[in-house]
Amino acid sequence: MTSASNDAVTAAILVIGDEILSGRTKDRNIGTIADYLTAVGIDLREVRIVPDERAMIVEAVNALRARYTYLFTTGGIGPTHDDITADCIAEAFGVPIDVDPRARAMLLERIKPEDLNAARLRMARIPEGADLIPNPISKAPGFRIGNVHVMAGVPAIMQAMLDQIGPSLRTGGRVISETIEVGNMPEGAYASELAAIAGAHAGVSIGSYPSMTESGFLNRIVVRGRDGAAITAARSEIEALIARLRA
Amino acid sequence: MTSASNDAVTAAILVIGDEILSGRTKDRNIGTIADYLTAVGIDLREVRIVPDERAMIVEAVNALRARYTYLFTTGGIGPTHDDITADCIAEAFGVPIDVDPRARAMLLERIKPEDLNAARLRMARIPEGADLIPNPISKAPGFRIGNVHVMAGVPAIMQAMLDQIGPSLRTGGRVISETIEVGNMPEGAYASELAAIAGAHAGVSIGSYPSMTESGFLNRIVVRGRDGAAITAARSEIEALIARLRA
Repeated sequence: MTSASNDAVTAAILVIGDEILSGRTKDRNIGTIADYLTAVGIDLREVRIVPDERAMIVEAVNALRARYTYLFTTGGIGPTHDDITADCIAEAFGVPIDVDPRARAMLLERIKPEDLNAARLRMARIPEGADLIPNPISKAPGFRIGNVHVMAGVPAIMQAMLDQIGPSLRTGGRVISETIEVGNMPEGAYASELAAIAGAHAGVSIGSYPSMTESGFLNRIVVRGRDGAAITAARSEIEALIARLRA
Repeated sequence: MTSASNDAVTAAILVIGDEILSGRTKDRNIGTIADYLTAVGIDLREVRIVPDERAMIVEAVNALRARYTYLFTTGGIGPTHDDITADCIAEAFGVPIDVDPRARAMLLERIKPEDLNAARLRMARIPEGADLIPNPISKAPGFRIGNVHVMAGVPAIMQAMLDQIGPSLRTGGRVISETIEVGNMPEGAYASELAAIAGAHAGVSIGSYPSMTESGFLNRIVVRGRDGAAITAARSEIEALIARLRA
Protein backbone atom coordinates (compact mmCIF):
# COMPACT_ATOMS: atom_id res chain seq x y z
CA MET A 1 0.00 0.00 0.00
CA THR A 2 1.33 3.44 -0.79
CA SER A 3 0.47 4.97 2.52
CA ALA A 4 -1.53 4.44 5.64
CA SER A 5 -3.18 7.23 7.55
CA ASN A 6 -6.07 7.78 9.88
CA ASP A 7 -8.11 9.50 7.21
CA ALA A 8 -11.06 7.38 6.22
CA VAL A 9 -10.61 5.94 2.74
CA THR A 10 -13.96 4.86 1.30
CA ALA A 11 -15.09 2.66 -1.55
CA ALA A 12 -18.09 1.40 -3.48
CA ILE A 13 -18.57 -1.67 -5.68
CA LEU A 14 -20.65 -1.69 -8.86
CA VAL A 15 -21.55 -5.16 -10.12
CA ILE A 16 -22.65 -5.08 -13.76
CA GLY A 17 -24.64 -7.94 -15.22
CA ASP A 18 -28.11 -9.22 -16.05
CA GLU A 19 -27.04 -12.71 -14.99
CA ILE A 20 -26.66 -11.63 -11.36
CA LEU A 21 -30.06 -9.90 -11.29
CA SER A 22 -31.80 -12.91 -12.85
CA GLY A 23 -30.33 -15.17 -10.16
CA ARG A 24 -28.70 -17.35 -12.82
CA THR A 25 -25.25 -16.48 -11.50
CA LYS A 26 -24.71 -16.00 -7.77
CA ASP A 27 -22.27 -13.15 -7.15
CA ARG A 28 -19.12 -14.07 -5.27
CA ASN A 29 -17.10 -10.93 -5.98
CA ILE A 30 -18.80 -8.62 -3.47
CA GLY A 31 -17.73 -10.76 -0.51
CA THR A 32 -14.19 -11.14 -1.86
CA ILE A 33 -13.72 -7.41 -2.41
CA ALA A 34 -15.37 -6.58 0.94
CA ASP A 35 -12.93 -8.85 2.76
CA TYR A 36 -10.00 -7.39 0.87
CA LEU A 37 -10.92 -3.77 1.52
CA THR A 38 -11.59 -4.40 5.20
CA ALA A 39 -8.21 -6.08 5.56
CA VAL A 40 -6.39 -3.02 4.19
CA GLY A 41 -8.45 -0.46 6.08
CA ILE A 42 -10.68 0.84 3.28
CA ASP A 43 -14.35 1.37 4.26
CA LEU A 44 -16.71 -0.26 1.78
CA ARG A 45 -19.72 2.10 2.00
CA GLU A 46 -22.07 1.01 -0.77
CA VAL A 47 -22.67 -1.70 -3.35
CA ARG A 48 -24.93 -1.54 -6.38
CA ILE A 49 -25.87 -4.23 -8.91
CA VAL A 50 -27.23 -3.01 -12.25
CA PRO A 51 -28.14 -4.68 -15.55
CA ASP A 52 -26.16 -4.50 -18.83
CA GLU A 53 -27.82 -1.19 -19.76
CA ARG A 54 -25.92 1.90 -20.71
CA ALA A 55 -27.99 4.53 -18.91
CA MET A 56 -28.06 2.64 -15.63
CA ILE A 57 -24.33 1.88 -15.69
CA VAL A 58 -23.35 5.46 -16.51
CA GLU A 59 -25.62 6.87 -13.81
CA ALA A 60 -24.31 4.49 -11.16
CA VAL A 61 -20.65 5.07 -12.12
CA ASN A 62 -21.04 8.82 -11.87
CA ALA A 63 -22.98 8.68 -8.59
CA LEU A 64 -20.50 6.35 -6.91
CA ARG A 65 -17.22 7.77 -8.20
CA ALA A 66 -18.25 11.23 -6.98
CA ARG A 67 -19.13 10.00 -3.53
CA TYR A 68 -16.30 7.65 -2.54
CA THR A 69 -12.51 7.53 -2.65
CA TYR A 70 -12.61 4.49 -4.94
CA LEU A 71 -15.09 2.67 -7.13
CA PHE A 72 -14.52 -0.95 -8.15
CA THR A 73 -16.62 -2.41 -10.97
CA THR A 74 -16.93 -6.06 -11.96
CA GLY A 75 -18.31 -7.55 -15.17
CA GLY A 76 -19.05 -6.59 -18.75
CA ILE A 77 -15.53 -6.42 -20.22
CA GLY A 78 -15.60 -9.49 -22.46
CA PRO A 79 -15.92 -9.66 -26.27
CA THR A 80 -19.68 -10.12 -26.68
CA HIS A 81 -22.35 -7.52 -27.50
CA ASP A 82 -23.61 -7.44 -23.91
CA ASP A 83 -20.15 -6.40 -22.65
CA ILE A 84 -20.56 -2.62 -22.60
CA THR A 85 -18.76 -1.57 -19.44
CA ALA A 86 -15.74 0.09 -21.09
CA ASP A 87 -17.95 2.21 -23.37
CA CYS A 88 -20.10 3.21 -20.41
CA ILE A 89 -17.06 4.25 -18.36
CA ALA A 90 -15.81 6.38 -21.26
CA GLU A 91 -19.25 8.00 -21.48
CA ALA A 92 -19.34 8.59 -17.72
CA PHE A 93 -15.97 10.34 -17.87
CA GLY A 94 -16.73 12.12 -21.17
CA VAL A 95 -13.60 10.78 -22.88
CA PRO A 96 -13.13 8.99 -26.22
CA ILE A 97 -12.63 5.23 -26.36
CA ASP A 98 -10.73 3.23 -28.95
CA VAL A 99 -8.50 0.19 -29.35
CA ASP A 100 -5.49 0.72 -27.08
CA PRO A 101 -2.18 -0.59 -28.53
CA ARG A 102 -1.01 -1.74 -25.08
CA ALA A 103 -4.19 -3.75 -24.56
CA ARG A 104 -3.98 -5.13 -28.10
CA ALA A 105 -0.45 -6.34 -27.38
CA MET A 106 -1.68 -8.08 -24.23
CA LEU A 107 -4.39 -9.89 -26.21
CA LEU A 108 -1.75 -11.04 -28.72
CA GLU A 109 0.05 -12.86 -25.90
CA ARG A 110 -2.83 -15.33 -25.97
CA ILE A 111 -4.60 -14.90 -29.29
CA LYS A 112 -2.97 -15.57 -32.67
CA PRO A 113 -2.89 -12.46 -34.89
CA GLU A 114 -5.14 -14.12 -37.48
CA ASP A 115 -7.73 -14.83 -34.73
CA LEU A 116 -7.79 -11.24 -33.45
CA ASN A 117 -11.18 -10.42 -34.98
CA ALA A 118 -13.36 -7.38 -34.38
CA ALA A 119 -15.15 -8.94 -31.43
CA ARG A 120 -11.91 -9.84 -29.65
CA LEU A 121 -10.55 -6.38 -30.35
CA ARG A 122 -13.49 -5.03 -28.33
CA MET A 123 -11.57 -6.29 -25.29
CA ALA A 124 -8.77 -3.85 -26.18
CA ARG A 125 -11.12 -0.83 -26.28
CA ILE A 126 -9.95 1.34 -23.38
CA PRO A 127 -11.10 4.86 -22.45
CA GLU A 128 -8.49 7.54 -23.18
CA GLY A 129 -6.23 8.26 -20.24
CA ALA A 130 -6.78 4.93 -18.46
CA ASP A 131 -4.04 2.74 -17.01
CA LEU A 132 -4.31 -0.98 -17.72
CA ILE A 133 -4.76 -3.67 -15.08
CA PRO A 134 -2.98 -6.80 -16.31
CA ASN A 135 -4.93 -10.05 -16.46
CA PRO A 136 -2.56 -12.96 -15.89
CA ILE A 137 -5.24 -15.55 -16.64
CA SER A 138 -6.86 -14.66 -19.96
CA LYS A 139 -4.85 -11.51 -20.84
CA ALA A 140 -7.79 -9.17 -21.66
CA PRO A 141 -6.97 -6.32 -19.27
CA GLY A 142 -9.04 -4.30 -16.84
CA PHE A 143 -8.27 -0.63 -16.41
CA ARG A 144 -8.18 2.27 -13.98
CA ILE A 145 -9.37 5.74 -14.89
CA GLY A 146 -9.57 8.42 -12.23
CA ASN A 147 -10.70 6.68 -9.05
CA VAL A 148 -12.54 3.89 -10.91
CA HIS A 149 -11.09 0.37 -11.22
CA VAL A 150 -12.73 -1.75 -13.91
CA MET A 151 -12.35 -5.50 -13.41
CA ALA A 152 -13.60 -8.74 -14.94
CA GLY A 153 -16.64 -10.57 -13.60
CA VAL A 154 -15.17 -14.09 -13.59
CA PRO A 155 -14.16 -14.47 -9.93
CA ALA A 156 -10.67 -15.91 -10.50
CA ILE A 157 -9.79 -13.10 -12.90
CA MET A 158 -11.33 -10.44 -10.65
CA GLN A 159 -9.22 -11.76 -7.79
CA ALA A 160 -6.06 -11.62 -9.90
CA MET A 161 -6.83 -8.03 -10.92
CA LEU A 162 -7.54 -7.04 -7.31
CA ASP A 163 -4.14 -8.42 -6.34
CA GLN A 164 -2.56 -6.22 -9.03
CA ILE A 165 -4.44 -3.12 -7.90
CA GLY A 166 -3.83 -3.57 -4.18
CA PRO A 167 -0.36 -2.01 -3.86
CA SER A 168 -1.52 1.21 -5.59
CA LEU A 169 -4.43 1.88 -3.24
CA ARG A 170 -4.33 4.51 -0.55
CA THR A 171 -5.39 2.76 2.63
CA GLY A 172 -6.89 3.98 5.86
CA GLY A 173 -5.99 3.01 9.37
CA ARG A 174 -6.43 -0.71 9.69
CA VAL A 175 -9.85 -1.60 11.10
CA ILE A 176 -9.79 -3.95 14.06
CA SER A 177 -12.81 -6.17 14.56
CA GLU A 178 -13.40 -8.15 17.73
CA THR A 179 -16.23 -10.60 18.26
CA ILE A 180 -17.91 -11.43 21.56
CA GLU A 181 -19.76 -14.73 21.37
CA VAL A 182 -23.08 -14.41 23.15
CA GLY A 183 -24.41 -17.88 22.39
CA ASN A 184 -28.14 -18.38 22.70
CA MET A 185 -28.82 -15.40 25.00
CA PRO A 186 -31.54 -13.47 23.13
CA GLU A 187 -30.67 -10.09 21.67
CA GLY A 188 -33.64 -8.62 23.51
CA ALA A 189 -32.01 -9.51 26.84
CA TYR A 190 -29.02 -7.26 26.28
CA ALA A 191 -30.16 -4.76 23.66
CA SER A 192 -30.98 -1.82 25.98
CA GLU A 193 -27.71 -1.98 27.91
CA LEU A 194 -25.73 -2.59 24.71
CA ALA A 195 -27.26 0.57 23.24
CA ALA A 196 -26.07 2.51 26.29
CA ILE A 197 -22.54 1.13 25.88
CA ALA A 198 -22.61 1.98 22.16
CA GLY A 199 -23.75 5.51 22.98
CA ALA A 200 -20.89 5.96 25.44
CA HIS A 201 -18.21 4.70 23.03
CA ALA A 202 -18.61 6.89 19.97
CA GLY A 203 -15.18 5.99 18.60
CA VAL A 204 -16.14 2.40 17.88
CA SER A 205 -18.95 0.74 15.97
CA ILE A 206 -20.89 -1.94 17.85
CA GLY A 207 -23.24 -4.36 16.11
CA SER A 208 -25.27 -7.36 17.21
CA TYR A 209 -25.69 -10.14 14.66
CA PRO A 210 -28.05 -13.07 15.04
CA SER A 211 -27.64 -16.22 13.03
CA MET A 212 -29.79 -19.32 13.03
CA THR A 213 -28.51 -22.80 13.66
CA GLU A 214 -30.35 -26.08 14.02
CA SER A 215 -30.45 -25.56 17.76
CA GLY A 216 -31.81 -22.01 17.56
CA PHE A 217 -30.40 -18.51 17.43
CA LEU A 218 -26.72 -17.83 17.97
CA ASN A 219 -25.83 -14.21 18.65
CA ARG A 220 -22.56 -12.35 18.28
CA ILE A 221 -21.62 -8.80 19.22
CA VAL A 222 -18.93 -7.23 17.04
CA VAL A 223 -16.86 -4.19 18.04
CA ARG A 224 -15.08 -2.44 15.15
CA GLY A 225 -12.82 0.57 14.95
CA ARG A 226 -9.32 1.84 14.37
CA ASP A 227 -8.34 2.60 17.99
CA GLY A 228 -7.21 -0.51 19.85
CA ALA A 229 -7.61 1.04 23.30
CA ALA A 230 -11.15 2.22 22.51
CA ILE A 231 -12.07 -1.26 21.29
CA THR A 232 -10.65 -2.89 24.42
CA ALA A 233 -12.60 -0.49 26.63
CA ALA A 234 -15.90 -1.15 24.85
CA ARG A 235 -15.26 -4.86 24.72
CA SER A 236 -14.60 -5.05 28.47
CA GLU A 237 -17.90 -3.35 29.23
CA ILE A 238 -19.78 -5.67 26.89
CA GLU A 239 -18.16 -8.77 28.36
CA ALA A 240 -19.01 -7.57 31.87
CA LEU A 241 -22.61 -6.97 30.75
CA ILE A 242 -22.98 -10.45 29.28
CA ALA A 243 -21.37 -12.07 32.33
CA ARG A 244 -23.74 -10.16 34.64
CA LEU A 245 -26.78 -11.23 32.60
CA ARG A 246 -25.61 -14.85 32.61
CA ALA A 247 -25.16 -14.89 36.38
CA MET B 1 -50.14 -14.51 -7.56
CA THR B 2 -53.02 -12.09 -7.91
CA SER B 3 -52.63 -11.58 -11.63
CA ALA B 4 -50.34 -12.19 -14.53
CA SER B 5 -50.00 -9.82 -17.44
CA ASN B 6 -47.53 -8.89 -20.10
CA ASP B 7 -46.77 -5.57 -18.41
CA ALA B 8 -43.28 -5.56 -17.02
CA VAL B 9 -43.31 -5.67 -13.23
CA THR B 10 -40.00 -4.46 -11.81
CA ALA B 11 -38.26 -4.67 -8.47
CA ALA B 12 -35.22 -3.61 -6.50
CA ILE B 13 -33.57 -5.06 -3.41
CA LEU B 14 -32.04 -2.96 -0.63
CA VAL B 15 -29.74 -4.90 1.71
CA ILE B 16 -29.14 -2.99 4.95
CA GLY B 17 -26.20 -3.84 7.16
CA ASP B 18 -22.63 -2.98 8.09
CA GLU B 19 -21.85 -6.67 8.45
CA ILE B 20 -22.33 -7.29 4.72
CA LEU B 21 -20.13 -4.34 3.72
CA SER B 22 -17.34 -5.40 6.09
CA GLY B 23 -17.35 -8.87 4.54
CA ARG B 24 -18.01 -10.43 7.95
CA THR B 25 -21.34 -11.82 6.74
CA LYS B 26 -21.69 -13.03 3.15
CA ASP B 27 -25.10 -12.10 1.78
CA ARG B 28 -27.29 -14.98 0.67
CA ASN B 29 -30.58 -13.11 0.38
CA ILE B 30 -29.92 -11.38 -2.95
CA GLY B 31 -29.60 -14.67 -4.83
CA THR B 32 -32.67 -16.13 -3.11
CA ILE B 33 -34.86 -13.13 -3.89
CA ALA B 34 -33.49 -12.92 -7.46
CA ASP B 35 -34.41 -16.56 -8.11
CA TYR B 36 -37.85 -16.03 -6.60
CA LEU B 37 -38.65 -12.92 -8.62
CA THR B 38 -37.42 -14.45 -11.85
CA ALA B 39 -39.59 -17.52 -11.27
CA VAL B 40 -42.74 -15.40 -10.93
CA GLY B 41 -41.93 -13.05 -13.82
CA ILE B 42 -40.84 -9.95 -11.89
CA ASP B 43 -37.76 -8.19 -13.32
CA LEU B 44 -35.16 -7.49 -10.65
CA ARG B 45 -33.60 -4.28 -11.98
CA GLU B 46 -31.26 -3.06 -9.25
CA VAL B 47 -29.72 -4.03 -5.93
CA ARG B 48 -28.09 -1.77 -3.38
CA ILE B 49 -26.25 -2.58 -0.16
CA VAL B 50 -25.94 0.25 2.37
CA PRO B 51 -24.66 0.52 5.95
CA ASP B 52 -26.78 0.94 9.09
CA GLU B 53 -26.94 4.71 8.61
CA ARG B 54 -30.14 6.68 8.56
CA ALA B 55 -29.37 9.12 5.74
CA MET B 56 -28.13 6.44 3.39
CA ILE B 57 -31.07 4.11 4.06
CA VAL B 58 -33.68 6.85 3.62
CA GLU B 59 -32.08 8.07 0.38
CA ALA B 60 -31.89 4.56 -1.08
CA VAL B 61 -35.46 3.69 -0.06
CA ASN B 62 -36.83 6.81 -1.69
CA ALA B 63 -34.76 6.39 -4.86
CA LEU B 64 -35.70 2.76 -5.34
CA ARG B 65 -39.38 2.85 -4.36
CA ALA B 66 -39.96 5.66 -6.84
CA ARG B 67 -38.30 3.84 -9.68
CA TYR B 68 -39.59 0.27 -9.49
CA THR B 69 -42.88 -1.54 -8.97
CA TYR B 70 -41.61 -3.13 -5.75
CA LEU B 71 -38.78 -2.64 -3.29
CA PHE B 72 -37.70 -5.47 -0.99
CA THR B 73 -35.44 -4.65 1.96
CA THR B 74 -33.56 -7.09 4.17
CA GLY B 75 -31.94 -6.49 7.54
CA GLY B 76 -32.07 -4.09 10.45
CA ILE B 77 -35.38 -5.03 12.10
CA GLY B 78 -34.09 -6.67 15.29
CA PRO B 79 -34.10 -5.28 18.84
CA THR B 80 -30.61 -3.76 19.05
CA HIS B 81 -29.52 -0.14 18.63
CA ASP B 82 -28.12 -0.79 15.14
CA ASP B 83 -31.55 -2.00 13.92
CA ILE B 84 -32.93 1.24 12.47
CA THR B 85 -34.71 0.08 9.31
CA ALA B 86 -38.30 0.63 10.54
CA ASP B 87 -37.55 4.20 11.66
CA CYS B 88 -35.85 4.94 8.35
CA ILE B 89 -38.81 3.62 6.37
CA ALA B 90 -41.17 5.82 8.40
CA GLU B 91 -38.93 8.80 7.69
CA ALA B 92 -38.76 7.95 3.99
CA PHE B 93 -42.57 7.85 3.81
CA GLY B 94 -43.02 10.82 6.14
CA VAL B 95 -45.31 8.92 8.51
CA PRO B 96 -45.21 8.46 12.30
CA ILE B 97 -43.91 5.25 13.85
CA ASP B 98 -44.90 3.69 17.14
CA VAL B 99 -45.47 0.35 18.82
CA ASP B 100 -48.16 -1.46 16.81
CA PRO B 101 -50.60 -3.50 18.94
CA ARG B 102 -50.79 -6.23 16.27
CA ALA B 103 -47.00 -6.57 16.22
CA ARG B 104 -46.86 -6.49 20.02
CA ALA B 105 -49.37 -9.36 20.11
CA MET B 106 -47.18 -11.35 17.72
CA LEU B 107 -44.13 -10.83 19.94
CA LEU B 108 -46.17 -12.07 22.94
CA GLU B 109 -46.65 -15.41 21.16
CA ARG B 110 -42.96 -16.05 21.83
CA ILE B 111 -41.91 -13.68 24.60
CA LYS B 112 -43.35 -13.75 28.14
CA PRO B 113 -45.07 -10.46 29.07
CA GLU B 114 -42.54 -9.83 31.86
CA ASP B 115 -39.68 -10.19 29.33
CA LEU B 116 -41.17 -7.73 26.84
CA ASN B 117 -38.70 -4.95 27.67
CA ALA B 118 -38.15 -1.69 25.80
CA ALA B 119 -35.57 -3.20 23.45
CA ARG B 120 -37.83 -6.07 22.42
CA LEU B 121 -40.72 -3.64 21.95
CA ARG B 122 -38.57 -1.92 19.31
CA MET B 123 -39.38 -4.92 17.12
CA ALA B 124 -43.07 -3.94 17.34
CA ARG B 125 -42.42 -0.38 16.12
CA ILE B 126 -44.18 -0.20 12.76
CA PRO B 127 -44.74 2.83 10.50
CA GLU B 128 -48.33 4.04 10.45
CA GLY B 129 -50.38 2.51 7.66
CA ALA B 130 -48.20 -0.58 7.17
CA ASP B 131 -49.45 -4.15 6.87
CA LEU B 132 -47.55 -6.77 8.86
CA ILE B 133 -45.66 -9.69 7.34
CA PRO B 134 -45.88 -12.58 9.79
CA ASN B 135 -42.66 -14.25 10.93
CA PRO B 136 -43.36 -17.92 11.66
CA ILE B 137 -39.86 -18.47 13.05
CA SER B 138 -39.15 -15.80 15.64
CA LYS B 139 -42.47 -13.88 15.51
CA ALA B 140 -41.04 -10.32 15.14
CA PRO B 141 -42.88 -9.27 11.97
CA GLY B 142 -41.77 -7.56 8.80
CA PHE B 143 -44.13 -5.12 7.14
CA ARG B 144 -45.33 -3.68 3.86
CA ILE B 145 -45.95 0.00 3.31
CA GLY B 146 -46.79 1.28 -0.15
CA ASN B 147 -44.67 -0.76 -2.56
CA VAL B 148 -41.94 -1.48 0.00
CA HIS B 149 -41.62 -4.87 1.69
CA VAL B 150 -39.43 -4.85 4.81
CA MET B 151 -37.97 -8.23 5.72
CA ALA B 152 -35.52 -9.72 8.20
CA GLY B 153 -31.86 -10.27 7.34
CA VAL B 154 -31.52 -13.79 8.75
CA PRO B 155 -31.90 -15.92 5.59
CA ALA B 156 -34.35 -18.48 6.96
CA ILE B 157 -36.65 -15.74 8.26
CA MET B 158 -36.32 -13.70 5.07
CA GLN B 159 -37.31 -16.79 3.08
CA ALA B 160 -40.35 -17.38 5.29
CA MET B 161 -41.42 -13.75 4.87
CA LEU B 162 -40.95 -13.92 1.10
CA ASP B 163 -43.19 -16.98 1.01
CA GLN B 164 -45.86 -14.95 2.86
CA ILE B 165 -45.55 -11.99 0.51
CA GLY B 166 -45.52 -13.97 -2.72
CA PRO B 167 -49.27 -14.44 -3.26
CA SER B 168 -49.92 -10.69 -2.95
CA LEU B 169 -47.45 -9.65 -5.63
CA ARG B 170 -48.50 -8.56 -9.08
CA THR B 171 -46.46 -10.62 -11.51
CA GLY B 172 -45.40 -10.09 -15.08
CA GLY B 173 -45.43 -12.58 -17.89
CA ARG B 174 -43.27 -15.51 -16.89
CA VAL B 175 -39.73 -15.13 -18.18
CA ILE B 176 -38.42 -18.13 -20.07
CA SER B 177 -34.67 -18.71 -20.01
CA GLU B 178 -32.93 -21.17 -22.30
CA THR B 179 -29.26 -22.05 -22.16
CA ILE B 180 -27.07 -23.12 -25.06
CA GLU B 181 -23.93 -24.88 -23.87
CA VAL B 182 -20.99 -23.70 -25.93
CA GLY B 183 -18.28 -25.61 -24.10
CA ASN B 184 -14.73 -24.40 -24.54
CA MET B 185 -15.29 -22.51 -27.81
CA PRO B 186 -13.96 -19.02 -27.03
CA GLU B 187 -16.45 -16.15 -26.82
CA GLY B 188 -14.33 -14.26 -29.35
CA ALA B 189 -15.05 -16.93 -31.97
CA TYR B 190 -18.80 -16.30 -31.98
CA ALA B 191 -19.18 -12.79 -30.55
CA SER B 192 -19.61 -10.88 -33.84
CA GLU B 193 -22.23 -13.21 -35.27
CA LEU B 194 -23.99 -13.48 -31.91
CA ALA B 195 -24.23 -9.68 -31.82
CA ALA B 196 -25.91 -9.77 -35.26
CA ILE B 197 -28.41 -12.37 -34.04
CA ALA B 198 -29.09 -10.31 -30.90
CA GLY B 199 -29.65 -7.22 -33.05
CA ALA B 200 -32.15 -9.08 -35.23
CA HIS B 201 -34.15 -10.46 -32.28
CA ALA B 202 -35.12 -7.41 -30.28
CA GLY B 203 -37.85 -9.24 -28.37
CA VAL B 204 -35.41 -11.43 -26.49
CA SER B 205 -32.34 -10.78 -24.40
CA ILE B 206 -29.21 -12.72 -25.34
CA GLY B 207 -26.18 -12.96 -23.06
CA SER B 208 -22.91 -14.85 -23.18
CA TYR B 209 -21.47 -15.98 -19.85
CA PRO B 210 -18.00 -17.39 -19.36
CA SER B 211 -17.08 -19.40 -16.31
CA MET B 212 -13.75 -20.92 -15.40
CA THR B 213 -13.21 -24.55 -14.60
CA GLU B 214 -10.03 -26.47 -13.91
CA SER B 215 -9.81 -27.33 -17.59
CA GLY B 216 -10.29 -23.74 -18.79
CA PHE B 217 -13.18 -21.54 -19.81
CA LEU B 218 -16.68 -22.90 -20.22
CA ASN B 219 -19.09 -20.63 -22.08
CA ARG B 220 -22.87 -20.50 -22.10
CA ILE B 221 -25.25 -18.43 -24.17
CA VAL B 222 -28.55 -17.62 -22.49
CA VAL B 223 -31.69 -16.47 -24.32
CA ARG B 224 -34.34 -14.86 -22.10
CA GLY B 225 -37.74 -13.41 -22.82
CA ARG B 226 -41.48 -13.78 -22.41
CA ASP B 227 -42.37 -14.93 -25.95
CA GLY B 228 -41.74 -18.64 -26.46
CA ALA B 229 -41.78 -18.44 -30.26
CA ALA B 230 -39.27 -15.57 -30.28
CA ILE B 231 -36.97 -17.51 -27.96
CA THR B 232 -37.17 -20.61 -30.14
CA ALA B 233 -36.34 -18.57 -33.26
CA ALA B 234 -33.29 -16.93 -31.67
CA ARG B 235 -32.16 -20.18 -30.12
CA SER B 236 -32.29 -21.99 -33.48
CA GLU B 237 -30.10 -19.37 -35.12
CA ILE B 238 -27.59 -19.51 -32.28
CA GLU B 239 -27.45 -23.30 -32.36
CA ALA B 240 -26.91 -23.20 -36.13
CA LEU B 241 -24.11 -20.65 -35.65
CA ILE B 242 -22.33 -22.75 -33.04
CA ALA B 243 -22.70 -25.92 -35.15
CA ARG B 244 -21.29 -24.10 -38.19
CA LEU B 245 -18.32 -22.81 -36.19
CA ARG B 246 -17.65 -26.28 -34.78
CA ALA B 247 -17.68 -27.88 -38.24
